[in-house]
Amino acid sequence: MSDDAAPVPFTADDFAARQQRALREAVDAGLDGVLVTPGPDLVWLTGYQPTAITERLTLLALTPDRSPSLLVPRLERGDAEASAGAPAVTFADWADGDDPYAAASGLLRATGRYGVSDSAWALHLLGLQASLPGSSYVALTEGLPMLRAVKGPDELIRLAAAGEAADHAYEEIVGVRFAGRRETEVAADLADLLRQFGHEQVDFTVVGSGPNGANPHHEAGSRVIADGDLVVLDFGGLRYGYGSDTTRTVSVGEPSAKQQEVHDVVRAAQQAGVDAVRPGVACQDIDRAARAVISEAGYGPQFLHRTGHGIGVTTHEPPYMVEGETQPLVPGMCFSVEPGVYLAGEFGVRIEDIVTVTDDGVRRLNNTDHGLRVVR
Amino acid sequence: MSDDAAPVPFTADDFAARQQRALREAVDAGLDGVLVTPGPDLVWLTGYQPTAITERLTLLALTPDRSPSLLVPRLERGDAEASAGAPAVTFADWADGDDPYAAASGLLRATGRYGVSDSAWALHLLGLQASLPGSSYVALTEGLPMLRAVKGPDELIRLAAAGEAADHAYEEIVGVRFAGRRETEVAADLADLLRQFGHEQVDFTVVGSGPNGANPHHEAGSRVIADGDLVVLDFGGLRYGYGSDTTRTVSVGEPSAKQQEVHDVVRAAQQAGVDAVRPGVACQDIDRAARAVISEAGYGPQFLHRTGHGIGVTTHEPPYMVEGETQPLVPGMCFSVEPGVYLAGEFGVRIEDIVTVTDDGVRRLNNTDHGLRVVR
Repeated sequence: MSDDAAPVPFTADDFAARQQRALREAVDAGLDGVLVTPGPDLVWLTGYQPTAITERLTLLALTPDRSPSLLVPRLERGDAEASAGAPAVTFADWADGDDPYAAASGLLRATGRYGVSDSAWALHLLGLQASLPGSSYVALTEGLPMLRAVKGPDELIRLAAAGEAADHAYEEIVGVRFAGRRETEVAADLADLLRQFGHEQVDFTVVGSGPNGANPHHEAGSRVIADGDLVVLDFGGLRYGYGSDTTRTVSVGEPSAKQQEVHDVVRAAQQAGVDAVRPGVACQDIDRAARAVISEAGYGPQFLHRTGHGIGVTTHEPPYMVEGETQPLVPGMCFSVEPGVYLAGEFGVRIEDIVTVTDDGVRRLNNTDHGLRVVR
Repeated sequence: MSDDAAPVPFTADDFAARQQRALREAVDAGLDGVLVTPGPDLVWLTGYQPTAITERLTLLALTPDRSPSLLVPRLERGDAEASAGAPAVTFADWADGDDPYAAASGLLRATGRYGVSDSAWALHLLGLQASLPGSSYVALTEGLPMLRAVKGPDELIRLAAAGEAADHAYEEIVGVRFAGRRETEVAADLADLLRQFGHEQVDFTVVGSGPNGANPHHEAGSRVIADGDLVVLDFGGLRYGYGSDTTRTVSVGEPSAKQQEVHDVVRAAQQAGVDAVRPGVACQDIDRAARAVISEAGYGPQFLHRTGHGIGVTTHEPPYMVEGETQPLVPGMCFSVEPGVYLAGEFGVRIEDIVTVTDDGVRRLNNTDHGLRVVR
């Protein structure tokens, strides 16, 4: 059901260029290098993802002192060497029974200051700190928060393809039966649709009906959807390795005046947030623009979360559209704009699109209608 | 297809008892408390698992200074309060824009030494270290490696139920067609069988045919299985929240003399490993017992990994059966015994059972035949 051609795969040269950029940005930020453990940073820098993230240390070291080095457990070396970015790194390994931190220390300066993956295990960070007591560390999102935030053209086509697939899934899901079915059944339909439209991974399919929609972290439960419910649908995953994340709120049967009113407010807030996006504007101003509309309508306290988050090889990453984030927007950044209003015990409304910053404004990567759709 | 009754759910009292035990063991080990982020430790101590593990700090603090405290993002408080262990903790929360490390610091001593979850994010550990510069940390598997290692009767019945389901899955999989099908197809069959027999989560279904079996970290690929292949089947997941993990190697058609010989060696090694299990024996002695058989047969260098790992709320945890691990076995410990021989370019053989240490010896939680089964 996906008729667009798959993008050209990333090459070792692509990964080498990202590694060089990461190191250059690290040095510019006063760091002696970047240390990356399995997860999205490693996928982005090497294309390598171990089959499981375990207590066995895997570490990519990007430093000015040597060529990019990937330390892996010996057992996993074959898999790592088969990754697309393998030609861009020099491999080292350690065997069960060896001290992996001694092996890692050999790649580092005794008193170096390194950026380290946010999600690196404490076990590994403590191992490095003990092995090199003079070294120091800063989380990558603190030291280089925008490392993966600005997407290149080869990434944008993937994010656009993911958004398009999510839009197709939405257009189909509004045709299914809601009333009388459990949230989990509609969630399963949504997951099937995302896969049908080309997602290789489904990360979440939130179906928050009636009062469940008022909990912004509700996923999908056993509640049977009823006529008169609003239903928050928030779904996403990965296509070609890049994320989708979109939210629409639908009405089972005709909405009440209050439901329509709150939906109108959130819709206007989302539009205001998107309209505020252009290069040079601070992230927090996107939050302020959306929040102002909701506060003015009297629902400020019921907008419980920040307005948005970045998206790329994960569905949840910097930059964050939140008060206090003064980072200016840069062309190529991709993130969600997703204000919501949550009325405890009653219902919730959220509307979310992924957008990208262009040279002179903004482009939506989700393009389905924002009106309050009536479903059966 | 699972006819045994589900175990009685864990209660808040069960979680409170585990929390007390963890704190007592921490104090005995010279620590000022235990800090637990989302993952298996948090599941074991509270029954709580956030819908996603993200950059938003969730932290359980067990200290002698106050009642057990669970700090959560405000958005997730409702979910956390709905967990089975919620009555056993005092909740605190922080909102987007707050400093979560300041909130966490308020629960801790300025110069305290704390055990912290192995898989706590470096981002969070660095945040705590910066917020309380006089504090220090040790990974829980370093400071309290055996915290979850000794299983109670209520955990053993779950592990036994998971093992029994995996055994049923094995008895069914040997009846399916292997020759002419891709590894991934057999892997999908295995996953379906684990679910049919009561697993709520499938963690891995390794199908390593022919030369792929010689890579101990191979999962399942597009290789078409052929007559004359040995095929390593290593599969597991969670049932009632506790893990299964078993491996058998099967022969597609009659095995060659060499395939049979290597299988005989691994089978004898696995038996020797299991036979060595009893209270008081060091973990490394299980590894030595299995390894001696393989080394004596001349395949020592082809036994590439340690002999086993613990299992509980995860399928991979301490204690590890590895040279250098002098921890004595204690009744209630549960772990794998899984020697293997890997002949690069040819084939691999691994045989794995989960066992538990009894008062006077050992009990297998996997009980299917160890012979080299011939499949179609």
